[in-house]
Amino acid sequence: MGTEFLEELIVKNDSKIVFLIIDGLGGLPMEEHGKTELATANTPNLDKLAVRSVCGILDPVMPGVTPGSGPGHLGLFGYEPIKYNIGRGVLSALGIGFDLKKGDVCARVNFATIDNKTGKIIDRRAGRIKTEENSRVCKKLRENLKIEGAELFIETEKEHRAALILRGEGLEDHLLDTDPQQNGFAPLPPEATDQNSDKTKKIVSSIIDQAKEILKDEKAANMLLLRGFAAYKPHKSMEERYGLKSLAIAQYPMYKGLARLLGMDIAPQSQTLEEEIELLEANFNKYDFFFVHFKKTDSLGEDGNFKAKVKEIEKIDRLIPGVLRLRPDVVAVSCDHSTPARLKAHSWHPAPTMLYSQYCRPDDVKRFDELSCVKGGLGRMPTANLMGIALANALRLKKFGA
Amino acid sequence: MGTEFLEELIVKNDSKIVFLIIDGLGGLPMEEHGKTELATANTPNLDKLAVRSVCGILDPVMPGVTPGSGPGHLGLFGYEPIKYNIGRGVLSALGIGFDLKKGDVCARVNFATIDNKTGKIIDRRAGRIKTEENSRVCKKLRENLKIEGAELFIETEKEHRAALILRGEGLEDHLLDTDPQQNGFAPLPPEATDQNSDKTKKIVSSIIDQAKEILKDEKAANMLLLRGFAAYKPHKSMEERYGLKSLAIAQYPMYKGLARLLGMDIAPQSQTLEEEIELLEANFNKYDFFFVHFKKTDSLGEDGNFKAKVKEIEKIDRLIPGVLRLRPDVVAVSCDHSTPARLKAHSWHPAPTMLYSQYCRPDDVKRFDELSCVKGGLGRMPTANLMGIALANALRLKKFGA
Repeated sequence: MGTEFLEELIVKNDSKIVFLIIDGLGGLPMEEHGKTELATANTPNLDKLAVRSVCGILDPVMPGVTPGSGPGHLGLFGYEPIKYNIGRGVLSALGIGFDLKKGDVCARVNFATIDNKTGKIIDRRAGRIKTEENSRVCKKLRENLKIEGAELFIETEKEHRAALILRGEGLEDHLLDTDPQQNGFAPLPPEATDQNSDKTKKIVSSIIDQAKEILKDEKAANMLLLRGFAAYKPHKSMEERYGLKSLAIAQYPMYKGLARLLGMDIAPQSQTLEEEIELLEANFNKYDFFFVHFKKTDSLGEDGNFKAKVKEIEKIDRLIPGVLRLRPDVVAVSCDHSTPARLKAHSWHPAPTMLYSQYCRPDDVKRFDELSCVKGGLGRMPTANLMGIALANALRLKKFGA
Repeated sequence: MGTEFLEELIVKNDSKIVFLIIDGLGGLPMEEHGKTELATANTPNLDKLAVRSVCGILDPVMPGVTPGSGPGHLGLFGYEPIKYNIGRGVLSALGIGFDLKKGDVCARVNFATIDNKTGKIIDRRAGRIKTEENSRVCKKLRENLKIEGAELFIETEKEHRAALILRGEGLEDHLLDTDPQQNGFAPLPPEATDQNSDKTKKIVSSIIDQAKEILKDEKAANMLLLRGFAAYKPHKSMEERYGLKSLAIAQYPMYKGLARLLGMDIAPQSQTLEEEIELLEANFNKYDFFFVHFKKTDSLGEDGNFKAKVKEIEKIDRLIPGVLRLRPDVVAVSCDHSTPARLKAHSWHPAPTMLYSQYCRPDDVKRFDELSCVKGGLGRMPTANLMGIALANALRLKKFGA
């Protein structure tokens, strides 16, 4: 049964729910009989909280499926990731703070370097050009591109990445990526997988043809690669679904974008872990729900840097007393997916998770790590169930039936 | 996948399945690091059975959702509670043994005291009038109410509670409660939420107007409050679904009503726990499935009486040898929901559960309590799965596929 059923049971009160999301937290031992990053880290504060919590391991999408950041986070907020799937393009646009309107078709842009003679890609990331360079190129495109039938936005994200947004009547998003995902190949021509997307395809083809001409003298960014075409269809917000006025505290555009999609307010930019906790404290009276996102564990996992990921977990552990001092009614610690340094990538392994409230039924898990959580009272369940359990522990769900 | 799939696999044999349902059994510690009611109780017989059983924790509806008695029990019998939801009105009518026909629209009645001048409610429960007083008032209403377009039944339940049943063509149940749920407010006028329920609304309005007049000289019960309007749509019975001729042994109307809804026969009224086991023994050859319901654990939990709930669990523990002496093929011990004394209410916490048969695969749970069951072989799963496991252990399910 879907989490939508919870919406019928919502009651409001003044409880506070804090989700501490340690991106890519789950890991793997580097060698047989070894320990994971989390089991290696010295985490006295997380362990102390685990003793008072109910623990478990959660499948972000379904067993075996490795989620991207989008699906991983949707599940945490009770939006079942397959049902509520959104495209990469929409996430990119939301991540840069672009004010999307319903029906806008978005794509993720990579600036790339192609060989002007053969047309083949030399560098899919245009040497990771500087962000200022990216801005200059975007401006050049905006000033020179002439398209009909839609309004075009092309916006800098970071380094070689940008977002492209088309706004207008009759646009659809069933287009294949033009990025061949490998150097040495030519970009793929835009292709629609249904007739309704023909208009969009023609506009995108025209954009690419013109861009090639406009950028032909650029040394690095002389081509656009597009992927993740997606029309923006707003989901019901966290407030509409659960009655939770929600604040996202995150440092990276992607996570802010995702939070915005679910109607969360976005806290001002922070630079450090400690600043994130300061923002939590400063806003604690103004919201019901707080999504606090810690990014670096994931990046370090993707770099394969086991030791640095351990250190980062230990830094996050030191933030826990500051969170508990605010006396939140419910605290959940989890992750959007595992990112084992061993794999240098997101993985399918379930997410170590704990949930504390004065009304939870603690199990006898004494340490917050993957192996201990296996024996916890949450058992193994889909991540999307966590939100209902958090709402229950905040006494925000009424009884179903007499 | 729904439990309906099991119906295709049913085979019959002469095995006996006993469900011992300890209402509201699951609990919480009263203070941090404390023990639950079940973990506190001295339960040598349940523990001995746990060693031979497969144990687990079950979610009656879905994680986080607190069930009423209706949904909680439906799940135990394999009727997924959201899909098979029934209204309070139907449960009330079934609970008093009223012979419902398909399409009857039922509502739960509270006799209430209103201020004849202001029309506002002074006491939503009319001072919990005696049941004989209730019967007198119901009779007065039956003799004086004149309605058109439907047959009306108004039947005493207990104290201030009664059931109202409308029978006739074109009746629908999309009506809001007239009970404002608080003293100091006037009863709400009947209101239909769809056009098809207009006829029912008019009849209910007329009943309330006339009742006010008929009861105007009553000191306590001078008004009717109606809630939980529900049309009776019989479910497939336990016998139709599973081939189980079933007997319910319960002391309270609600649980008998629910059992009747699923086509179970109802054992004669019993007054004590021991009498319930005597009824089990007396009827053991006549049925395949036995639902034995123990109510008091739930009531004591709702009273917040931790110690008395512990004692009641210990009393139930002493019944176990008498049950096992009958040599049932399958014994399940579970509950419809948790009712922690700590919360003085039903709760969302999963239900400690064990299932014994000579064919179960015992885990290493040595004690029947919430914490131990977490590590059991059933894991954490929806309550509605229990019935299939019971049928399998009774060798009443054939292989699926060749």
